[in-house]
Amino acid sequence: MIDLRPVGYIIGLLAAVLGLAMLIPALVDYMSGDEHWRAFVEAAIISATAGGLLAMASASGMRQMLTIPQSFLMTSTVWAILPAFGALPFMIGAPGLSFTDAYFEAMSGLTTTGTTAIPELDTLPAGANLWRGILQWLGGLGIIIVAMIFLPVMKVGGMQFFRSEGFDTLGKILPRAMDISRALIRIYVGLTLACALVYGALGMTAFDAAVHALTTVSTGGFSNYDASFAVYSGAPEYAASFFMLLAAMPFIRFVQVVQGNVGPLWRDPQVRAFLRWHAYAIGVIVLYRLFRHEAEFWPTLREVTFNVVSTFTGTGYASEDITKWGHLAFVVLIITGLIGGCTSSTGCSVKVFRYLILFEAIKTQIRRLHSPHRVARVNYAGRPVEDEVVNSVIAFFSLFILTFGLLIVGLSLTGLETKTALTAAWTAIANVGPAWGPEVSGNGAINAFPETAKWLMSIGMFLGRLELMSVFVLLLPRFWRA
Amino acid sequence: MIDLRPVGYIIGLLAAVLGLAMLIPALVDYMSGDEHWRAFVEAAIISATAGGLLAMASASGMRQMLTIPQSFLMTSTVWAILPAFGALPFMIGAPGLSFTDAYFEAMSGLTTTGTTAIPELDTLPAGANLWRGILQWLGGLGIIIVAMIFLPVMKVGGMQFFRSEGFDTLGKILPRAMDISRALIRIYVGLTLACALVYGALGMTAFDAAVHALTTVSTGGFSNYDASFAVYSGAPEYAASFFMLLAAMPFIRFVQVVQGNVGPLWRDPQVRAFLRWHAYAIGVIVLYRLFRHEAEFWPTLREVTFNVVSTFTGTGYASEDITKWGHLAFVVLIITGLIGGCTSSTGCSVKVFRYLILFEAIKTQIRRLHSPHRVARVNYAGRPVEDEVVNSVIAFFSLFILTFGLLIVGLSLTGLETKTALTAAWTAIANVGPAWGPEVSGNGAINAFPETAKWLMSIGMFLGRLELMSVFVLLLPRFWRA
Ligand SMILES: [K+]
Ligand SMILES: [K+]
Repeated sequence: MIDLRPVGYIIGLLAAVLGLAMLIPALVDYMSGDEHWRAFVEAAIISATAGGLLAMASASGMRQMLTIPQSFLMTSTVWAILPAFGALPFMIGAPGLSFTDAYFEAMSGLTTTGTTAIPELDTLPAGANLWRGILQWLGGLGIIIVAMIFLPVMKVGGMQFFRSEGFDTLGKILPRAMDISRALIRIYVGLTLACALVYGALGMTAFDAAVHALTTVSTGGFSNYDASFAVYSGAPEYAASFFMLLAAMPFIRFVQVVQGNVGPLWRDPQVRAFLRWHAYAIGVIVLYRLFRHEAEFWPTLREVTFNVVSTFTGTGYASEDITKWGHLAFVVLIITGLIGGCTSSTGCSVKVFRYLILFEAIKTQIRRLHSPHRVARVNYAGRPVEDEVVNSVIAFFSLFILTFGLLIVGLSLTGLETKTALTAAWTAIANVGPAWGPEVSGNGAINAFPETAKWLMSIGMFLGRLELMSVFVLLLPRFWRA
Repeated sequence: MIDLRPVGYIIGLLAAVLGLAMLIPALVDYMSGDEHWRAFVEAAIISATAGGLLAMASASGMRQMLTIPQSFLMTSTVWAILPAFGALPFMIGAPGLSFTDAYFEAMSGLTTTGTTAIPELDTLPAGANLWRGILQWLGGLGIIIVAMIFLPVMKVGGMQFFRSEGFDTLGKILPRAMDISRALIRIYVGLTLACALVYGALGMTAFDAAVHALTTVSTGGFSNYDASFAVYSGAPEYAASFFMLLAAMPFIRFVQVVQGNVGPLWRDPQVRAFLRWHAYAIGVIVLYRLFRHEAEFWPTLREVTFNVVSTFTGTGYASEDITKWGHLAFVVLIITGLIGGCTSSTGCSVKVFRYLILFEAIKTQIRRLHSPHRVARVNYAGRPVEDEVVNSVIAFFSLFILTFGLLIVGLSLTGLETKTALTAAWTAIANVGPAWGPEVSGNGAINAFPETAKWLMSIGMFLGRLELMSVFVLLLPRFWRA
């Protein structure tokens, strides 16, 4: 039997931290004279107390390091349990959601998905909108740390490939996990501040700049407006595109840039493919729209750039009704969402490096058909990739597609229209944000979905954010026996 | 440089055989007093002459065995060039199609896809409808032989797993490829005759029974009626379901059954999974329809069984407008089409054994996450599967999904609606048959699609039928250098 105490200790601490974070929206509501500040304080007390008690009860079992099974259990329970605490302000205070909707909203926040269960954001108290942003920001921070420190050791979906890279090349300068975390947090906070300043300079109010910076840098995509980013169309779209791109790039490279070493970022094949594919997607859609609608070049370029970057990075802001751009544009956007960002970023979905390895693996297979006796190896960034990593990557891809398919079936089973089921499954598993279909509310909210569909989406977001395998490993009987 | 003569010799022979086959519809039209018989004779002369000349010109290079590169080139060129000959009767005679449409129709026939480019089948001369059936029957026969003899040796998509099985266990009784082919042909002809007799006994006219038997046993799905199988709803639906199921099972097992050995068929994990998954799909849709519509049990069971089997086996007959069954039913049907039949059958798509290995591979990966130092092996039918086979299978699956995605993009680019692009790509790559959407004609024909869309679908059917990799290998520069 696994010793559950270290897991309980960490969950308890994080719940308490989440409770403390609730005091920020409480303060904002209090200062703006909104009575809803009380709800945040109440939720903060509940979270801090419950978390503190759990941490104290489990403290005796805490040691220096988590075992691998404990790491799996910890990441899964963090993202399954913290949303329940994060949901409290939405239930106690505005907009008074049901537990299902509130848990969905907090899950969508902490997984940086950005689909909302709230059909009216414009009239929501400032505190609630800020809390949505904070949930995404904390979720994004959490995932960077997990992706950097835990997933490579846990060998999820080929992530072990980055283990040596993260720990060896950086290791000389930052020898321990704690130091890496601290460096990542500094980059993350720095990016958020820079983003907020640029948004402010481009005309956003301080509050809007803060909320949007929190949800840009986390590629979360929550906005405090029903019209999403359309409220700030123009120059802010380019600024947002820039920061969304940065947020979906490997943060470990930024740590190196800060140390004066720009080369690794510049040469990173993930980053290069990521930017190249963005250029293709933007180019194709711009040309398509120009030929199709006699649209003007510059506004088209801006709208397409913003919406492609928003979907590709999995942020999920909208500044336009992209379904009006024609079928090709829609299909290309859906596909970019299935690619996603780079590793060691807040980006989600399958991720660029897995496609690069997948393409290489397929090429190698085809080469082997032709020359069965020749040794054909998969290469990445100029060095050979072990078979174990290749297997892990393509098994991940297959599992992703199969889970996506099952989620579509499940959502159809609840009675959702096919287009809705398809885009809702897509948005959940790839943590993008928007969904389309007759059951989707005007601002993109899924409040009118059946209860079961909301829970299925919550599960989908959870699985997608934790890279599937790190959750499914808990289903092995032997996991609990060991 | 590869010696092209053996390939030319085989293509020439097959084109001549195809020409001879055209004399059958010529005879049928002649006897029914339809002037269109002349078109078939003309097309027969062209095909037999061109084929004969090509075979004679290449005969000097024919040796006992094809090399592996020659086998790849041969299978690809057979399915690329024969449709051009098969198309001639549709251009010269009724319904006087353009080359694009006629090539599409013949490709859809020879790949056993079953999508038609002809918007009116009821008024088509008997000869043309029979020719459509013969194309599918020959295509089905061809693919069984290729799948049995060539793909395992060529190691396409994990098919090498079946090499030892086909050649070793049967090899004691049927030592050579020619003997296996002869046994397979006997089974195929026997099944076709049995199917035609049963159809006749259940009330079909002799002509309808013949056409439908040809397209049932080949899991082709062409019908000589615009209403497809709805013309014969009732008992014939169960008969058709039975023969479609047989046609999508491993024919090599039937060879064993004929030899008095029923065990291998009974114990085959592919067959068991195939039937089990059918039961699940039928059960889910029947329950869904009963709860949703207050439908009657027996007619619902019959309709659902027929349409699930028709889609799952990739036959593609319709007896009902399945889009009226609700979203869940539609999604489940689409997914069954992405599974497809067993190896060594006329069935298409990813195939059952690949999913079985894929599931095992994913399970193994997840087990490895938990116990990294334990050796976890993928098993199939109780024996371990080599890593090479596993890699090949999951690379195939990934390539299938990626090609499917690209085809959707390509079809959207031609201006097709998203639903049309999605279902047309699905029907082409998985060789199923039906497509849905505003651009699809009343009888399911794609005659109104843009030219480019028709060519993209032809390419998709071609790639799907030849298991993708066996075509892509021709794109390697080194293939041509060797
Ligand atoms: K998002
Ligand atoms: K078919």
